[in-house]
Amino acid sequence: MSKILSEGGVSCNSARNPNYAIGVFDSGVGGLTVLHELRQLLPSENLVYLGDTAHVPYGTKSAETVRKYSLEAANFLVHKQVKMVVVACNTASSVALELLQRQLLVPVVGVIAPGAQRAVSLTRSGVVGVIGTEGTVASDAYPQALRALNAQIKVFSASCPLFVPLAEEGWAQHAIAELAAREYLAPLLAAQIDTLVLGCTHYPLLKPILQQVLPPQVQMVDSAQETAYTVQRMLAADGLLNSQEIGSWQFFVTDVPQRFVRVGEAFLGTSLSAVERVELEAVNCGVLR
Amino acid sequence: MSKILSEGGVSCNSARNPNYAIGVFDSGVGGLTVLHELRQLLPSENLVYLGDTAHVPYGTKSAETVRKYSLEAANFLVHKQVKMVVVACNTASSVALELLQRQLLVPVVGVIAPGAQRAVSLTRSGVVGVIGTEGTVASDAYPQALRALNAQIKVFSASCPLFVPLAEEGWAQHAIAELAAREYLAPLLAAQIDTLVLGCTHYPLLKPILQQVLPPQVQMVDSAQETAYTVQRMLAADGLLNSQEIGSWQFFVTDVPQRFVRVGEAFLGTSLSAVERVELEAVNCGVLR
Repeated sequence: MSKILSEGGVSCNSARNPNYAIGVFDSGVGGLTVLHELRQLLPSENLVYLGDTAHVPYGTKSAETVRKYSLEAANFLVHKQVKMVVVACNTASSVALELLQRQLLVPVVGVIAPGAQRAVSLTRSGVVGVIGTEGTVASDAYPQALRALNAQIKVFSASCPLFVPLAEEGWAQHAIAELAAREYLAPLLAAQIDTLVLGCTHYPLLKPILQQVLPPQVQMVDSAQETAYTVQRMLAADGLLNSQEIGSWQFFVTDVPQRFVRVGEAFLGTSLSAVERVELEAVNCGVLR
Repeated sequence: MSKILSEGGVSCNSARNPNYAIGVFDSGVGGLTVLHELRQLLPSENLVYLGDTAHVPYGTKSAETVRKYSLEAANFLVHKQVKMVVVACNTASSVALELLQRQLLVPVVGVIAPGAQRAVSLTRSGVVGVIGTEGTVASDAYPQALRALNAQIKVFSASCPLFVPLAEEGWAQHAIAELAAREYLAPLLAAQIDTLVLGCTHYPLLKPILQQVLPPQVQMVDSAQETAYTVQRMLAADGLLNSQEIGSWQFFVTDVPQRFVRVGEAFLGTSLSAVERVELEAVNCGVLR
């Protein structure tokens, strides 16, 4: 298999066609919330999803390691002949998006910018909260994206390491989730945010509990929805929207599929069939060093 | 670098010497609880610790993937000239111990058998509870080890996915930890266990909370302590105990060290200096297929 990356960083796959799929990757099941929104908004599109379950989670790993894993995942998708790559993982979007945009010849969409745009359009007070993984918060990607849109915005961030296992455990509505939410959000509420960005693809599952903990004036931004709108806009602008009636979807994972299927079905609310395990090709790339 | 595994499964490192180190590996920081017990019991020993933080956690991954990672980790330690390898991870001990014992020419000690032996010697009612990761519980390793020692033992198991992030978040004493413990332990207490095996190296940090939730007649088994006794016994039997005054320790990780150092220092209660990042050599081995 040829690489997306030659020594000059040139991709082998630059042709684009409306019938090509949209490639979506995440460290595991979390990105299925983005897939779900894409499916809702763009039912005609073919979707190829890769969950890098042999390396999950990305959220506690270093930027350098997440870049390496992201490049390998994107490389796999490009070889599936996709017209666009969606980085459906906030951590990977935070630390690897620019690298992927530089290295791939198809457009690469992350989840940070769409969420930041929505937050800036929603906030009245200019005080925005962001919750995400340790990696996303440490990267400072959301504050940078928000302040690039409006330099006056004040941003308060909190990492919420328990939210992912709570969502995967099926405990998103449990008293434990509420207690954890109160703990994590306390400093953000003390800072009087009026907008909260759900900066991790798992977090939409916690919306009902977050709604209980947040005062009514605080609005939530779901990056998954905003990202789907961005994908639609970009494909439309390039004349690359698929006009078929109903699109296909395909799922690939890097560890055995059982857990992905079990947790993923709870996420998607639909059955996941034909999930195939694949081995990713190591990408050794000078830019990673 | 030569491999521990040739086609015939022969190691390149079979010499043993009291001055050689004890090699210890885990998916991340959890195994530091085992290292701590080794240090307490065997202060003269040199210790080499590897945390496979690029792949952490093992507990949600498949047996096949954990075997691959474990073999790569053990391979690294063997090339550091160790006289014994301690698998300081319940998940890896559950699914990879036999493979490692078959492939390495130095003795390999896991954490399952020592914990099971202690539990069998403690229980009066013959009803034993085991808590661990999803991978450990799914492997059935503890019930098998317990029943091999006493066929009459009844075993009730529960996976506790929130305990690792709670311990790593520094929330082991938090009300959330107590609520989670009550939830996870309810079915085990209903089954009237009188002994509870802490089947994950993170769980000793939750002992104070577990003590509050467990009735006074239920005794806890800490695999870390039992494993240290097993190591001592085996080295003594082979005449391989180190007689120097005070041993050294060395730490290696597979992702950047910052998070390991931060969380690990909380685990060990001491400062961790000179943690070195390494890249593990891929081990392609027919036995993994």
